[in-house]
Amino acid sequence: MDLRALSHLLESYKRGDLDTSEAVKRVRDLQYEDIGYARVDHGRATRQGFPEVVFGKGKSRQQVVGIVERLLKHHSNVLVTHTDADAYGEIRNIATDAEWHESARLIRVMRDRTPRGVAKISVVTAGTSDIPVAEEAALTAEAMGNSVERIWAVGVAGIHRVIAEREVLNKSRVVIVAAGMEGALPSVVGGLVAVPVVAVPTSIGYGASFGGVTALLGMLNSCASNVTVVNIDNGFGAGFVASLINRRWEPDAD
Amino acid sequence: MDLRALSHLLESYKRGDLDTSEAVKRVRDLQYEDIGYARVDHGRATRQGFPEVVFGKGKSRQQVVGIVERLLKHHSNVLVTHTDADAYGEIRNIATDAEWHESARLIRVMRDRTPRGVAKISVVTAGTSDIPVAEEAALTAEAMGNSVERIWAVGVAGIHRVIAEREVLNKSRVVIVAAGMEGALPSVVGGLVAVPVVAVPTSIGYGASFGGVTALLGMLNSCASNVTVVNIDNGFGAGFVASLINRRWEPDAD
Amino acid sequence: MDLRALSHLLESYKRGDLDTSEAVKRVRDLQYEDIGYARVDHGRATRQGFPEVVFGKGKSRQQVVGIVERLLKHHSNVLVTHTDADAYGEIRNIATDAEWHESARLIRVMRDRTPRGVAKISVVTAGTSDIPVAEEAALTAEAMGNSVERIWAVGVAGIHRVIAEREVLNKSRVVIVAAGMEGALPSVVGGLVAVPVVAVPTSIGYGASFGGVTALLGMLNSCASNVTVVNIDNGFGAGFVASLINRRWEPDAD
Amino acid sequence: MDLRALSHLLESYKRGDLDTSEAVKRVRDLQYEDIGYARVDHGRATRQGFPEVVFGKGKSRQQVVGIVERLLKHHSNVLVTHTDADAYGEIRNIATDAEWHESARLIRVMRDRTPRGVAKISVVTAGTSDIPVAEEAALTAEAMGNSVERIWAVGVAGIHRVIAEREVLNKSRVVIVAAGMEGALPSVVGGLVAVPVVAVPTSIGYGASFGGVTALLGMLNSCASNVTVVNIDNGFGAGFVASLINRRWEPDAD
Amino acid sequence: MDLRALSHLLESYKRGDLDTSEAVKRVRDLQYEDIGYARVDHGRATRQGFPEVVFGKGKSRQQVVGIVERLLKHHSNVLVTHTDADAYGEIRNIATDAEWHESARLIRVMRDRTPRGVAKISVVTAGTSDIPVAEEAALTAEAMGNSVERIWAVGVAGIHRVIAEREVLNKSRVVIVAAGMEGALPSVVGGLVAVPVVAVPTSIGYGASFGGVTALLGMLNSCASNVTVVNIDNGFGAGFVASLINRRWEPDAD
Amino acid sequence: MDLRALSHLLESYKRGDLDTSEAVKRVRDLQYEDIGYARVDHGRATRQGFPEVVFGKGKSRQQVVGIVERLLKHHSNVLVTHTDADAYGEIRNIATDAEWHESARLIRVMRDRTPRGVAKISVVTAGTSDIPVAEEAALTAEAMGNSVERIWAVGVAGIHRVIAEREVLNKSRVVIVAAGMEGALPSVVGGLVAVPVVAVPTSIGYGASFGGVTALLGMLNSCASNVTVVNIDNGFGAGFVASLINRRWEPDAD
Amino acid sequence: MDLRALSHLLESYKRGDLDTSEAVKRVRDLQYEDIGYARVDHGRATRQGFPEVVFGKGKSRQQVVGIVERLLKHHSNVLVTHTDADAYGEIRNIATDAEWHESARLIRVMRDRTPRGVAKISVVTAGTSDIPVAEEAALTAEAMGNSVERIWAVGVAGIHRVIAEREVLNKSRVVIVAAGMEGALPSVVGGLVAVPVVAVPTSIGYGASFGGVTALLGMLNSCASNVTVVNIDNGFGAGFVASLINRRWEPDAD
Amino acid sequence: MDLRALSHLLESYKRGDLDTSEAVKRVRDLQYEDIGYARVDHGRATRQGFPEVVFGKGKSRQQVVGIVERLLKHHSNVLVTHTDADAYGEIRNIATDAEWHESARLIRVMRDRTPRGVAKISVVTAGTSDIPVAEEAALTAEAMGNSVERIWAVGVAGIHRVIAEREVLNKSRVVIVAAGMEGALPSVVGGLVAVPVVAVPTSIGYGASFGGVTALLGMLNSCASNVTVVNIDNGFGAGFVASLINRRWEPDAD
Repeated sequence: MDLRALSHLLESYKRGDLDTSEAVKRVRDLQYEDIGYARVDHGRATRQGFPEVVFGKGKSRQQVVGIVERLLKHHSNVLVTHTDADAYGEIRNIATDAEWHESARLIRVMRDRTPRGVAKISVVTAGTSDIPVAEEAALTAEAMGNSVERIWAVGVAGIHRVIAEREVLNKSRVVIVAAGMEGALPSVVGGLVAVPVVAVPTSIGYGASFGGVTALLGMLNSCASNVTVVNIDNGFGAGFVASLINRRWEPDAD
Repeated sequence: MDLRALSHLLESYKRGDLDTSEAVKRVRDLQYEDIGYARVDHGRATRQGFPEVVFGKGKSRQQVVGIVERLLKHHSNVLVTHTDADAYGEIRNIATDAEWHESARLIRVMRDRTPRGVAKISVVTAGTSDIPVAEEAALTAEAMGNSVERIWAVGVAGIHRVIAEREVLNKSRVVIVAAGMEGALPSVVGGLVAVPVVAVPTSIGYGASFGGVTALLGMLNSCASNVTVVNIDNGFGAGFVASLINRRWEPDAD
Repeated sequence: MDLRALSHLLESYKRGDLDTSEAVKRVRDLQYEDIGYARVDHGRATRQGFPEVVFGKGKSRQQVVGIVERLLKHHSNVLVTHTDADAYGEIRNIATDAEWHESARLIRVMRDRTPRGVAKISVVTAGTSDIPVAEEAALTAEAMGNSVERIWAVGVAGIHRVIAEREVLNKSRVVIVAAGMEGALPSVVGGLVAVPVVAVPTSIGYGASFGGVTALLGMLNSCASNVTVVNIDNGFGAGFVASLINRRWEPDAD
Repeated sequence: MDLRALSHLLESYKRGDLDTSEAVKRVRDLQYEDIGYARVDHGRATRQGFPEVVFGKGKSRQQVVGIVERLLKHHSNVLVTHTDADAYGEIRNIATDAEWHESARLIRVMRDRTPRGVAKISVVTAGTSDIPVAEEAALTAEAMGNSVERIWAVGVAGIHRVIAEREVLNKSRVVIVAAGMEGALPSVVGGLVAVPVVAVPTSIGYGASFGGVTALLGMLNSCASNVTVVNIDNGFGAGFVASLINRRWEPDAD
Repeated sequence: MDLRALSHLLESYKRGDLDTSEAVKRVRDLQYEDIGYARVDHGRATRQGFPEVVFGKGKSRQQVVGIVERLLKHHSNVLVTHTDADAYGEIRNIATDAEWHESARLIRVMRDRTPRGVAKISVVTAGTSDIPVAEEAALTAEAMGNSVERIWAVGVAGIHRVIAEREVLNKSRVVIVAAGMEGALPSVVGGLVAVPVVAVPTSIGYGASFGGVTALLGMLNSCASNVTVVNIDNGFGAGFVASLINRRWEPDAD
Repeated sequence: MDLRALSHLLESYKRGDLDTSEAVKRVRDLQYEDIGYARVDHGRATRQGFPEVVFGKGKSRQQVVGIVERLLKHHSNVLVTHTDADAYGEIRNIATDAEWHESARLIRVMRDRTPRGVAKISVVTAGTSDIPVAEEAALTAEAMGNSVERIWAVGVAGIHRVIAEREVLNKSRVVIVAAGMEGALPSVVGGLVAVPVVAVPTSIGYGASFGGVTALLGMLNSCASNVTVVNIDNGFGAGFVASLINRRWEPDAD
Repeated sequence: MDLRALSHLLESYKRGDLDTSEAVKRVRDLQYEDIGYARVDHGRATRQGFPEVVFGKGKSRQQVVGIVERLLKHHSNVLVTHTDADAYGEIRNIATDAEWHESARLIRVMRDRTPRGVAKISVVTAGTSDIPVAEEAALTAEAMGNSVERIWAVGVAGIHRVIAEREVLNKSRVVIVAAGMEGALPSVVGGLVAVPVVAVPTSIGYGASFGGVTALLGMLNSCASNVTVVNIDNGFGAGFVASLINRRWEPDAD
Repeated sequence: MDLRALSHLLESYKRGDLDTSEAVKRVRDLQYEDIGYARVDHGRATRQGFPEVVFGKGKSRQQVVGIVERLLKHHSNVLVTHTDADAYGEIRNIATDAEWHESARLIRVMRDRTPRGVAKISVVTAGTSDIPVAEEAALTAEAMGNSVERIWAVGVAGIHRVIAEREVLNKSRVVIVAAGMEGALPSVVGGLVAVPVVAVPTSIGYGASFGGVTALLGMLNSCASNVTVVNIDNGFGAGFVASLINRRWEPDAD
């Protein structure tokens, strides 16, 4: 639960600005809010340091807008992933500062730009076609207060390309690597750096790439021990967890 | 490359303790050492903060012993995973302080016990049968300078068990969760904490668990955004990457 | 065979309202009716307590309408699943009281609203995107004489949401849980209640969710022993079997 | 929590038979008991109507015996599945009335034989080779207070065999069907009865039966709407859920 | 090679109607004809008793028409499968007697209607949605000189429907069974008859039917020994091989 | 039902050799016999022209012997597949004329050697390692009254080997082809002959042969239209169905 | 690095045509050129004897055009695969001599036609539908300086068709074979020739062909030892590697 | 057919050393020899430049010895793969110069050591555990007249190890790369050299390596265009095809 929000609320109640039943409802809403088709989980910001992201796929446009509206009442930064330009059109009605990122198919509202990381996060792709997924990771990491280094198209068939970036990589607290096809780049990057590597398989490829399964399996079997893996095309998840790794450790804050 | 080791070596050379050809060989060996059936990668300790672990499966006993022997000349802490008691018998001949961990099937030499983490690492299992894999993770994390909290058998079918541990979990810098069968525990733990969760699917189960594949897929599709995944039964990898996450960030040290 | 219908028929025959050949045909039709492209199985209502549902996919619109027409001659409640608004348009010509449920893509005729359950049936979803499949289950259970409690969006990444519903769940004779992605919710619900849980994997997710296969495997491997599983997106089957479980046991009725 | 056990405990405390710290420990143990390698979940008996079953695979013999010992302090009936005759030898030391069921590879302690079902449960197999899995289901159902009808070897290639049993099947409140190979029997049985059918795929077969996967898939795609499915070879789960379905509904009991 | 056609050709040559080079080309064309994008295999009629069927998918419309044109110069009956109404429009220009079968998506030219079978061939479906594939089989069998009995929609969930057709089935020399979903019908039919059953899995179903894979696996594991299987949706192949089985055996004819 | 056996039985009853209750039991036994762990299906001989084969795997030795004993009371020829030499040792006690076929792991009792086929059956293998499966097919076909031509090791990498056997193949009424690895031989044989080809994938191979799955898939996708497929290593099934194809058609016999 | 290009560049610099910073940039560009969304790998021409091919899928049209523009500044021959006619329209603006190959969906610029092979390369297809993939291979091989023999539609069901081409095949230095469905043709061709066979599985087929997986597996398990395999539909890769095999060996050239 | 052998044979016949029937048999034997359980394919030496290799798995020891005996009558060099030390014991009785290679589990008779390659073949492994498969490739290539460079344990997690071998690799006419786990090494090597790379996936790994499937898929999806792939653990095939690539091209020799 957001303790500062709770303090404000209790003070309002004490001052008589809220009657008891309204106060009860608002305290509960600090935890989650039931809007029929969704239980918007406001408590997650406290538990995980970021509001619930909205996964756009399989939800109607009204549902997406409705959830974003509730989230923006409690939080500064909100993301909608797997969405489209039409949803963006509607969300701009309730948030004129919303950004539309075409290649990542992501809507971002970013009102809080406080830096929260101990160092940079590098986001690396094997090929040009992997950029949309990598952008989703980069945009997420930025929304969570990180400075991001983008390194595009340094796949293993031209190994000198990634070695040329070794210095930049070694200054990052964590490296995200997005790759499709055989998914070999995380292993090579993992061998070059001394920090965690978050590997994102992409669905780029054809034939026996099976929509990213080959890249996923390759990454899970990486011979570099510092590699962990998220779901195929899950740039958001990679950016999220990288942000948690890069966050300054303040054990008392929780 | 281990810069301190290199300084010592160069000084010896200057003092005349080493002739030139020997010095050249030793500088190169700081990087990796070719012993015929293996190229022992001493440089990895610098690059990743830990010596190459020896994966015992598919290597002959002599090969395992030979590699460990070389590693111990350069490093304080060494692990052998996927091994057996017989290999341990032979390794004790060259390292009398080697430990044998039966359930994890792991040999550990641990001469350096310097603490290196900013907080504790929690290692959690869903069931009793997942303990061997979790132990591999815990033993690795300890060997890399971490203090480990073991929380066994808090699977989701009795959800109150894991919720009871919420306080301990929230004090950890990173949580490792090992689970077989449906692999649901990382999602629940992920929703309870604000730190990265490293999920390890185990091969525990039968029928449609497919040797851990079901748990692996479940973890990759986790609805908790702070979950990343390593290979089935890869306790070592989970412990390794958790140690990197928990390490104090000193950008100049590299 | 519907014994009451048979009695009526035989009495008509005795009274001379029917000649012999017509009587033979009608007795046979009580069992099933051959309309060329289908054998409409009227006997199933007796055998299973509900008329044959019409699976719309792969049938032409005329075939769907033709089958529904025959079914409505013998039965009060009829469902068409996996269908579309156009089919609904035509079915309204033969049944003006037909309902169209957009999200579930289901047509329902419900003329008999006799309650037949011993308690409520709860239908639970992990996310907003799982609602269409859950609605198919809920609409089916209602058509079979049950009172349904809908509990939407209580997925495991915010475990407090489902625990908050514990009381309602524990008053149900059977709980249906629809979930996509890692499909972990049935295990958690299964651990909270003492009644059967019918788990419905949904095709919601992306990447390694494989169109619901991951959720399906997770549910089959549930560590909660009271969980059984139906096919991916098979809301109808879940609602059907839950209705049979909730039905008052009257061994003589059959 | 077992309310009767709690009353007894509190009364003892009131009478002074227990001091405070012991009372606290025992109240907590009513919920679950932490014995290091396991958290024995005594609360599950209340939540689900049966003590936690012990899954023997992947646990050491001492662990199995230790868990059973704790369970028997709180419960009358205990099952160990996926175990062997050696474990049985040791369990007899702590429970002389334990039974060993060779074909099902199951240990059963059954001190409470109160009938709890509204009708019989039928357990059916397609072939002789499916009997061990079916026996696991039957032994579980009996341990949970049910009377079981065993119907062996009535597979679909001789369809008259199962039709001959139609009368018996129709008197059951629920039918369990175990089948390997193509797994077609549940569909046929499902079409004959008006009650829930719990289908258990078995790993019997060869070649493209893939250790029960073919039977599993066949059952999930059953054209009979009253069929639900459990994991391959999961006789215990089938017996458990069938017992819950057959239990007399007493909503106030919980 | 078509011996009668060869005799005619050689006689023409003898009479001087053909010069030598033309005769050589025609003799070779009796075997196969190279038209650039295809080698039309005229010899197959002799080798297998029927001209090469044209698989429409992946070929341009001109290629389909071109191949059919060549085939009609040598053969009376020609089939095009996996095609569309547009291709039919063009083929009618070169064969006004071509038939278009919408549900099976098949073009048929059938100029030779000589009966060639020793008995009837029964073609059976489990559901209404399986009819298109079954029609492909039936149309093929008719084109190869067989009399076909169509039995639609007798799936195993209403087992009395197929048993009612037992007499008809037992008069057939071979039975084709098309079924999707769990694919159980061939096993039941196989147990009822004493002749070969050719099973055709169809792609009908959803979720874990995997586009016919479940039905295919079920049929391959049939417990009825007289069942063989062809590819998913391969009605043509089933009709073809059933025709070969039903053909009168005249060992000298070849 | 075996009509001749039924006549004999009824005559015995008329003569008073059997009392009524015994006669009832025997009439029913003509259909199937319940021996507890199995329902021996004597009616199958009539329905399919051969007694139920005993699948040895997963049955205890006593069960196998018990079933064979019952079968031999009603039938002349009996097969046990997937069995071992020890079972053979016991079966010889009840049938001294039983044969043990080591490579096929099959026991055969063959007391009736009446020829029943219209022509020979050819059994072909791609390699030496496929012979055991092919032998199972050949022994079955012989037991069902056929003369068998064995053609071993004519795989497609030396295509002249199978072409050299073309003449023999073309005199067969049906050809069985057993092949592992890529499973290409049935396509080639299918293109050479004008009769049905029954393809048996074998589990021979390694790596991506996946225990016969590759061969199975190859055969299902055969570009030769006269190929049908049975389960991996199912020599028995291939021999059985080939025998049905080769049988003289006598429609009145049934 | 292209040594001749480097010489020219250095000479220009010496002559003063380039200032130092421009020279540095150009030397680096000889290796690879960073254009934001891609690192165009000019060094690959030297390392592998051909410029980087552009994989069109997943790249925007502007990205494709941009990359081609850079490649044409350094290289004579450029290919774009997996592209469309619209991209071709734009590429003609920057390269009027670009060719559009509709069936292969490939754009080719071919300004250097120097022959580089020691013999012909044969490209063979099993069916008409495999031609587009085979064309991609043939066009690539030509662009790399080879003379190509196209042999279409000689699939194994008419084995005489491929045997008729034996002489041509045996004059090739390497044979490419494209086949879908069961993918058997490479094994047969492999048995006929004494040179390497590069097998390309195509996605042609339906049902259990699984988009080319069956053909792929068949080729990997080929019983002919001279067969290697590339990805499904990867005509480009097959043409590329065949060109490397066919190239005259000049060890000093590198 | 081996033309030189045929000349010798015909001359013997002319001289009267052979009578006609013997000559006929020997001419035919030059093509292949039927020894009951195998057709030994002597013609393959001519067609492919090497005698048929004997695949030991699934053959009895006598069969292996029998085939080797026949092969040695016609050929100098013979290999037996997938075999064991016992088979070696017996083969030494008929070939005292046979070698036993323990790690590769391969028997080699090598009487002809004529060099036949234009350059060296490099054989590379990712790890120590991949050596047995790589040895099978190396021993095969040597038996076919090549000089082999062995480069062990240069996996991608220490990328400097393989880069250090760049010079050796670039002098090879073809490179074989054996790797398990994620199978990334062939892509890196492929990017470093301008010659064909034959990739061999090995079954080394655990969990989601699926016995080599992950490595196989990774190699098939390699972003390096000069990589082709053979079956998992198929060292023999890789050595064979590499030898064909390395062979001097003499088009008239065939």
